[in-house]
Amino acid sequence: VTVRSYDPRTGAVNGSVDETTGAALRLVLEAARQAAPVVAGVAPAVRREWLRAIAASLEVHREELVALAERETALGETRLDGEVIRTAGQLRFYGDVAAEGSYLRAMLDTATDTTPHLARVNEPLGPVAVFGAGNFPFAFGCLGNDTASAIAAGCPVVVKAHPAHPLLSARLVAVARAALEAAGAPGGTLGAVSGFDAGVELVTSPVVRAVAFTGSQSGGLALWRAANEREVVIPVFAEMGTVNPIIVTPGGAGRMAEIAAGFVASFTLGSGQFCTKPGLLLAPSGSRAAAAVAGALQQAAPRPLMLTEAVAAAVPVAVDALVAAGASVVATVPGPASGWTAPAVVLEAPVDALHHGSRLLEECFGAVVVVTEYGDTRQFESAVEQLHGALAGSVMTAGGPDVSDDADAAHAVRLLATKVGRVAVDDWPTGVAYTWAQQHGGPWPATSAPAATSVGAAALDRFVRPVTYQSAPDGWLPVPLRAANPWSVPRRIDGALAPDAIR
Amino acid sequence: VTVRSYDPRTGAVNGSVDETTGAALRLVLEAARQAAPVVAGVAPAVRREWLRAIAASLEVHREELVALAERETALGETRLDGEVIRTAGQLRFYGDVAAEGSYLRAMLDTATDTTPHLARVNEPLGPVAVFGAGNFPFAFGCLGNDTASAIAAGCPVVVKAHPAHPLLSARLVAVARAALEAAGAPGGTLGAVSGFDAGVELVTSPVVRAVAFTGSQSGGLALWRAANEREVVIPVFAEMGTVNPIIVTPGGAGRMAEIAAGFVASFTLGSGQFCTKPGLLLAPSGSRAAAAVAGALQQAAPRPLMLTEAVAAAVPVAVDALVAAGASVVATVPGPASGWTAPAVVLEAPVDALHHGSRLLEECFGAVVVVTEYGDTRQFESAVEQLHGALAGSVMTAGGPDVSDDADAAHAVRLLATKVGRVAVDDWPTGVAYTWAQQHGGPWPATSAPAATSVGAAALDRFVRPVTYQSAPDGWLPVPLRAANPWSVPRRIDGALAPDAIR
Repeated sequence: VTVRSYDPRTGAVNGSVDETTGAALRLVLEAARQAAPVVAGVAPAVRREWLRAIAASLEVHREELVALAERETALGETRLDGEVIRTAGQLRFYGDVAAEGSYLRAMLDTATDTTPHLARVNEPLGPVAVFGAGNFPFAFGCLGNDTASAIAAGCPVVVKAHPAHPLLSARLVAVARAALEAAGAPGGTLGAVSGFDAGVELVTSPVVRAVAFTGSQSGGLALWRAANEREVVIPVFAEMGTVNPIIVTPGGAGRMAEIAAGFVASFTLGSGQFCTKPGLLLAPSGSRAAAAVAGALQQAAPRPLMLTEAVAAAVPVAVDALVAAGASVVATVPGPASGWTAPAVVLEAPVDALHHGSRLLEECFGAVVVVTEYGDTRQFESAVEQLHGALAGSVMTAGGPDVSDDADAAHAVRLLATKVGRVAVDDWPTGVAYTWAQQHGGPWPATSAPAATSVGAAALDRFVRPVTYQSAPDGWLPVPLRAANPWSVPRRIDGALAPDAIR
Repeated sequence: VTVRSYDPRTGAVNGSVDETTGAALRLVLEAARQAAPVVAGVAPAVRREWLRAIAASLEVHREELVALAERETALGETRLDGEVIRTAGQLRFYGDVAAEGSYLRAMLDTATDTTPHLARVNEPLGPVAVFGAGNFPFAFGCLGNDTASAIAAGCPVVVKAHPAHPLLSARLVAVARAALEAAGAPGGTLGAVSGFDAGVELVTSPVVRAVAFTGSQSGGLALWRAANEREVVIPVFAEMGTVNPIIVTPGGAGRMAEIAAGFVASFTLGSGQFCTKPGLLLAPSGSRAAAAVAGALQQAAPRPLMLTEAVAAAVPVAVDALVAAGASVVATVPGPASGWTAPAVVLEAPVDALHHGSRLLEECFGAVVVVTEYGDTRQFESAVEQLHGALAGSVMTAGGPDVSDDADAAHAVRLLATKVGRVAVDDWPTGVAYTWAQQHGGPWPATSAPAATSVGAAALDRFVRPVTYQSAPDGWLPVPLRAANPWSVPRRIDGALAPDAIR
């Protein structure tokens, strides 16, 4: 049995990879199991070198990888080239975060008359199964944020390649494995499997200690349920699709044309196949927001090609469902004449159609958006109250030299913060910087673990758990807890930041 | 319908409290909902004052509360008095942790050419349902670690009182509510409900955003499942019973009598009704460990009284099940002649009876333990491999002036760390200090969220989630993220600890 690779521009078959057999899967898992103590035991700075080796190798193979990705995804060579560069940067970033060592949360309590010596540190969970995304073949794929942060945290990774780009995924893993081997990492540091059945087996294998997933809500929830039915339940960090809302304040209505153009640019990026695609615009009544967005879409004239035949076929079905839920189409720009084409669509809906259970509150993958207008503050608040948890959202203000002058916007920011993991002001949610303060995870059902993030320094936190050592002699403690602090990690001693933490 | 209070020494009825009606529950939840933004919005130092007010009031009412607790639990006035003092200390500790501010994990990334200004902070989840424990009416009860850490983190709490001490629970909540009111906290900061049905409704209410539970595995898993079936799933932090293993190294066999005496003192504490009760002793073959423990038990001659009639009745049933699983009884000390009495029992089992699925690997609540002997290292390792995840465990070494001389012990510590949340060396697991470096949570099924802790500074982390603000003006940011850092919380700026963090 094989997984076929297709060219979205024509539907033609590029080639195929074999599905992983049961016997092959067992070998991959056994390699991960054996690698786990080694990957966990080396200094974080060593894992940083491994990740840097992968990054450098990605850059060496950049042209080849971009060409292969373009054949399988049609996302455009410029975008894909940038994504390779970003992915290399991510790998280095998570290595740096690991080496810095604060993710270990090392703490020491000295003994008192009534309490013992306690030493606490985050330890790696063990092998992590990573289900790569279809829409970002590099940055959220086999070598994306999940894989990089899991290895950085000390966990071997077994990736399940996304069926939208099987050839690229296989090549990425081969490139990374060669780089890891050259850098001295154990062979089981990174493994890969293909095919649906192998993916299911990963989630149920006793070897696997955590799951990271980027993709659809149905896929993420299925994995989460499967993991919850294990004898030993493991955490599933599923980052699923959401309707990322954009709120235009009453003052923002004065620059509706500008906002509409930005909205179109944001929701048509990658043919609307971003998990941070803004899917709903809430504008003040009288702003004629739908007409502005429709006009901006006609002018932008995108030509959406979708990642897979199924994704393309789902777009018109979803538009019909939105119409059935009370929305009406105000603009449609068709996709290309051939290939896995889908239209870009702007719909308008009355604000009271955003009620509990409405299809309008659920994601529509692709360049499809709903625009609605609110009347007074009360109507605005109750609309936001109806929204599902989302990854990100934006507040668009009156603009001008000091946005703080927009009195309604601060309130909108506070309200939106109860519904999302990231609130942007006069900025679009689509871009997700990989930095220390990033949060890419939102309230249920945006992610299955809303306190976790799949991008940013805290991404490592998902793959560790704390262990406390009581009255243990110094030499038996994990390295970061020893008195000499050989790795120079930041530590708290009796609750205070230790002087050697300051660097 | 009422919840009856009983005296475990006689089985006589002390009195009763009414079960919470549906209408009353709605009022409690509405008060919590209204309090949430206020509790979240005040400075952590203000919540510290609220918690200090509760602590001081506990101390004022100490005698009355201890007497009431003794009538309902028969745990002994000395122990209960110490527990009140501890509980007041915990309340102050979590207040201090909140005021220190590192739990906020405040981070700021300055804008670059390619990335926006990002500011990240942990925000309170909202109302938390706390299911208090039966075995620690104060320290893990209505005003215990869960309640204190949730309020410290900025969340109102609704407690579901444990049916083993309904009168005490009602009184504790009344004392705390009066203290909170006098300290200026909103009325909904702390609420309480009674009765099984009200507990179930708490877990399914949209108002409730997280659940903390201390108790049995069946109870914890039922709540976890109920929360997972919500439309908006919420986290359940269930700390459940486990078999906390004690490993005696080959060198430790030389001081078996001393270890046996310590073991008996530990497992008979509170009639064996500790979540950290050591339930299994793994000793080297030839150590005659079972005989030593049996002798120490006879000498200690405990008189176990259990918290409830059901708990008492379950002890002999569990002993029978252990016997059916291949263990044999080597010593029994009967409980008192009357009341909710249960025997203290030492059983011995062959090490190969510790196989997958064996009842010997599951908790037996009460003063019941299993002793087993391992042969070589391989047998020791495979026995540890079979153990379920547990809260804590100990390694008992050869002792002496430098325990590091025991070459086997370091290996045992590393192995045990894969199975528990806390490893003690030459110390018993029963005591759980509330300090910065404590970890009271272990691998599944010890806790439903093994990366979380219900004791120690990190207990607050359970009740917050991060939100990142992108390109937001300073005045709209949550206070801990503002440039002036008005609360003086530790922060990272561009990944580095900011100088104002050092205090």
